[in-house]
Amino acid sequence: VVSSAAASEDHGVASFTHLDGTGRARMVDVMGKPKTRRIAVARATVVLSVDLSELSPRWQGLAEIIEAARYTGILAGKQTAKLIPLCHPIAVDSVIVEVRPSSYRFAVEAIAQIVERTGVEMEALTACAITALSLVSAFQDADPWASVEELRLWHKSGGRSGVWNHDDEGAGATSLVVPATTSESP
Amino acid sequence: VVSSAAASEDHGVASFTHLDGTGRARMVDVMGKPKTRRIAVARATVVLSVDLSELSPRWQGLAEIIEAARYTGILAGKQTAKLIPLCHPIAVDSVIVEVRPSSYRFAVEAIAQIVERTGVEMEALTACAITALSLVSAFQDADPWASVEELRLWHKSGGRSGVWNHDDEGAGATSLVVPATTSESP
Amino acid sequence: VVSSAAASEDHGVASFTHLDGTGRARMVDVMGKPKTRRIAVARATVVLSVDLSELSPRWQGLAEIIEAARYTGILAGKQTAKLIPLCHPIAVDSVIVEVRPSSYRFAVEAIAQIVERTGVEMEALTACAITALSLVSAFQDADPWASVEELRLWHKSGGRSGVWNHDDEGAGATSLVVPATTSESP
Amino acid sequence: VVSSAAASEDHGVASFTHLDGTGRARMVDVMGKPKTRRIAVARATVVLSVDLSELSPRWQGLAEIIEAARYTGILAGKQTAKLIPLCHPIAVDSVIVEVRPSSYRFAVEAIAQIVERTGVEMEALTACAITALSLVSAFQDADPWASVEELRLWHKSGGRSGVWNHDDEGAGATSLVVPATTSESP
Amino acid sequence: VVSSAAASEDHGVASFTHLDGTGRARMVDVMGKPKTRRIAVARATVVLSVDLSELSPRWQGLAEIIEAARYTGILAGKQTAKLIPLCHPIAVDSVIVEVRPSSYRFAVEAIAQIVERTGVEMEALTACAITALSLVSAFQDADPWASVEELRLWHKSGGRSGVWNHDDEGAGATSLVVPATTSESP
Amino acid sequence: VVSSAAASEDHGVASFTHLDGTGRARMVDVMGKPKTRRIAVARATVVLSVDLSELSPRWQGLAEIIEAARYTGILAGKQTAKLIPLCHPIAVDSVIVEVRPSSYRFAVEAIAQIVERTGVEMEALTACAITALSLVSAFQDADPWASVEELRLWHKSGGRSGVWNHDDEGAGATSLVVPATTSESP
Repeated sequence: VVSSAAASEDHGVASFTHLDGTGRARMVDVMGKPKTRRIAVARATVVLSVDLSELSPRWQGLAEIIEAARYTGILAGKQTAKLIPLCHPIAVDSVIVEVRPSSYRFAVEAIAQIVERTGVEMEALTACAITALSLVSAFQDADPWASVEELRLWHKSGGRSGVWNHDDEGAGATSLVVPATTSESP
Repeated sequence: VVSSAAASEDHGVASFTHLDGTGRARMVDVMGKPKTRRIAVARATVVLSVDLSELSPRWQGLAEIIEAARYTGILAGKQTAKLIPLCHPIAVDSVIVEVRPSSYRFAVEAIAQIVERTGVEMEALTACAITALSLVSAFQDADPWASVEELRLWHKSGGRSGVWNHDDEGAGATSLVVPATTSESP
Repeated sequence: VVSSAAASEDHGVASFTHLDGTGRARMVDVMGKPKTRRIAVARATVVLSVDLSELSPRWQGLAEIIEAARYTGILAGKQTAKLIPLCHPIAVDSVIVEVRPSSYRFAVEAIAQIVERTGVEMEALTACAITALSLVSAFQDADPWASVEELRLWHKSGGRSGVWNHDDEGAGATSLVVPATTSESP
Repeated sequence: VVSSAAASEDHGVASFTHLDGTGRARMVDVMGKPKTRRIAVARATVVLSVDLSELSPRWQGLAEIIEAARYTGILAGKQTAKLIPLCHPIAVDSVIVEVRPSSYRFAVEAIAQIVERTGVEMEALTACAITALSLVSAFQDADPWASVEELRLWHKSGGRSGVWNHDDEGAGATSLVVPATTSESP
Repeated sequence: VVSSAAASEDHGVASFTHLDGTGRARMVDVMGKPKTRRIAVARATVVLSVDLSELSPRWQGLAEIIEAARYTGILAGKQTAKLIPLCHPIAVDSVIVEVRPSSYRFAVEAIAQIVERTGVEMEALTACAITALSLVSAFQDADPWASVEELRLWHKSGGRSGVWNHDDEGAGATSLVVPATTSESP
Repeated sequence: VVSSAAASEDHGVASFTHLDGTGRARMVDVMGKPKTRRIAVARATVVLSVDLSELSPRWQGLAEIIEAARYTGILAGKQTAKLIPLCHPIAVDSVIVEVRPSSYRFAVEAIAQIVERTGVEMEALTACAITALSLVSAFQDADPWASVEELRLWHKSGGRSGVWNHDDEGAGATSLVVPATTSESP
């Protein structure tokens, strides 16, 4: 049940901070929260019937498709509050998107950062989702069966809840270049 | 290689209609295509650690969350061309989104319809993706581990390629109300 | 009751075309409707505590405020489908906005026209509303009590329901320049 | 009065802070103002020929229409600066919208809050206006005569001018749930 | 000349089709015009203090910057009606953008195509302008003096006025790949 | 020069702050930068075959066209981050646009101001570019040969690099009213 899932709170519903006392959805009021540095990392996998590793590395098309998808995701991430009703409009400090092709799949990772009173989880997820859809779009003729899998938050830090990592050991193998870059970027 | 993956076409790269002769991405020119009725259905699953079936059916919050997510998806579907660079801006005739909660998951389905020279696959996928993210957003505090799975095209008809269905027998079990409604809607 | 209000229809709820058979809101499917020329006129009044007729006619500020408000309304009218979830995205053929200042009030009128399968009522209403709010915005310091009154549809023609006029004889007195222009414009 | 004020350079035009010294409209420069907590409440009434109180309280359609309108208003409130030219783009901390149906009308109330150098009056008014239009849209077939009345600012606090309330004693009777919630939210 | 034309009501003002009989700006009513295939080509030059030809052809950064700018321009071209108040919202059939680097400059070309009652000149110009600004943005640190020059329409065909070409013989030398591609694309 | 800088990994690429260590474009991370007051001024010239100085100064149309263009530019300037992928979304404190007609040309100037960790150069350039295009749009019928020239940054101050002015003595002659106004505005 919800109350057990949110065990540290009294009654389950209270853990849905998007609901007010009468059960109506609302934007969470963040005015009382301190501004802290917050980072969110989201990931997704695009699964294709096309073996990307056999495409010649010098074939320009793949790099172009990936680049298009990255910019698409960055622009979408910055517009999250216009897409998701209860998200706060925030001036995100950076959105980084990485795409790594391998056999039959793309690994997508988006990192959003901000110094604010509210998190950037939805910004990272939105950037990741639209990057993935842009890749699906590019392969629509070659593979109408392409799917997006495991689109989810991977890491978040900052704010009340501190550092949080999704517990998936196998993930290290598909780790992208960005996290290392990120840790040194400020 | 791509050419084998797209076996029914002559040369692999040609099957990426978003690429021109020099490998650069572009919007596909659709001016020569006839206007036909086109329908696209996309689906996704939101997987949670919360058992939705145990939430009281009279608890208003869940219905509100679902309704918010549906409208979010409809608005996003209508803005697909602003999010995906190589999509044509089209005046979609309808976008329908359905959400069905069950144990630990939401089934999401989006249907886009148009009479145009270009398809509405990306509109259905975008509506589906943003609906799913809106649901993830609502459960962010209760379950930061929520993920979106199997976001993909499920059915498309109209245009050069006729009717096409994703071959997944198990899908029938989670079939939503909408398809039946749709078939009678015109 | 609704059914009596919508007396010409069989059952009340059916008259809410934005609802499907299960009571869920949806975009109305317009694919089966013919494309016809459709015109919608909306009006609103902005009521101020400032006597606009005493402002010198040569004072440039008022003309600038009105012009700003008109363009604001036109741009908003073209974006109606992004603001109102169940409106169809349409390529409106023209949006015209007029503003006439008098003592203590602005009369605002917006006309939207299209050749389409769906009407442009919401486009006219949205253009009218945002024009009015832009005027309110300009007088925010001089009159925080400004209000928008009688924002409503005034005329619509085209489509299944033919010509329709709001029954208000007094309206002729505040009739704006636009309608005459409009009737000769095609 | 404004007309006399407008006759002299000293007071009159200065009250239109959206005009510069030459009478041209501009965004007010707020860089010198302190960041303070600001709250704005706007209200509007949607007047219908349909008696909403006779609709069965269990009829799901009305709740859905209201919910759709609320989200529509929240999304629009966050996009105010894109709609109203001279509004500052601000990262509003919260937008809350309430809708209460009664006989032949909806009472709509929107509350916007921020800690900033500029107010959120237009955000509240825009959220309120688009919520009202979304309700009008839903009843377009049942009642094309629906109108929006008394769309105006109701309360604002914060900034140079302190607390301000619209002087209308009768308003208490139609007071919505939100204000009480709001006063305890930070 | 326009000044003499503007002196009489007969010819001058009529040439400004964005003005109505009273000199007020408006969207041109296009409902009476036939739908024809229309093509518009716009060009611009970005002038830098950086010799692009000396950058190693294998340096990936330049290709990435160009690709980003191209997609940026395509997305902006599709949103022209939201940026330019009196432009009609149109469902452009294709927007193609090309960028060619040479010594100290980028040549930018945008081609917009549609089958509609109104032209796509502003769509091509907007795509071209935003592509150019995206390039300026990428070189902001290396060259804050970068400028955009000769942003203008280069070719248009379709509609009442037939084929039209800007009379500039020297232009052939900087002709981009796109026109040839375009002529065969339908 | 950049070409030599680009030859080594140490200095060259670092000057393109939009590229990360691997040559991929990214949003610059600004979280470590202090918030300072930043001002950017951009200018452009619209060149026409129409002698604007011979148009009667009382002819209302020109003032309307200019006013429309100014608002268009202000709205676009506030949406820069949605148009240019690697720009940070910022809550700009003011965008001012001025347009001065003379013989055969319009001088356009846009000033953007903010107290932030990142500059507003692109906001000023975007406001300037779209203002210029809006003017081109208004004269499209009278002069399809209109062009935008010398669109570039003219002044920036604030941030790490202090005050910077474009070195062009002749510019004083076409200096607009705004800079003086600006210096006294905070």
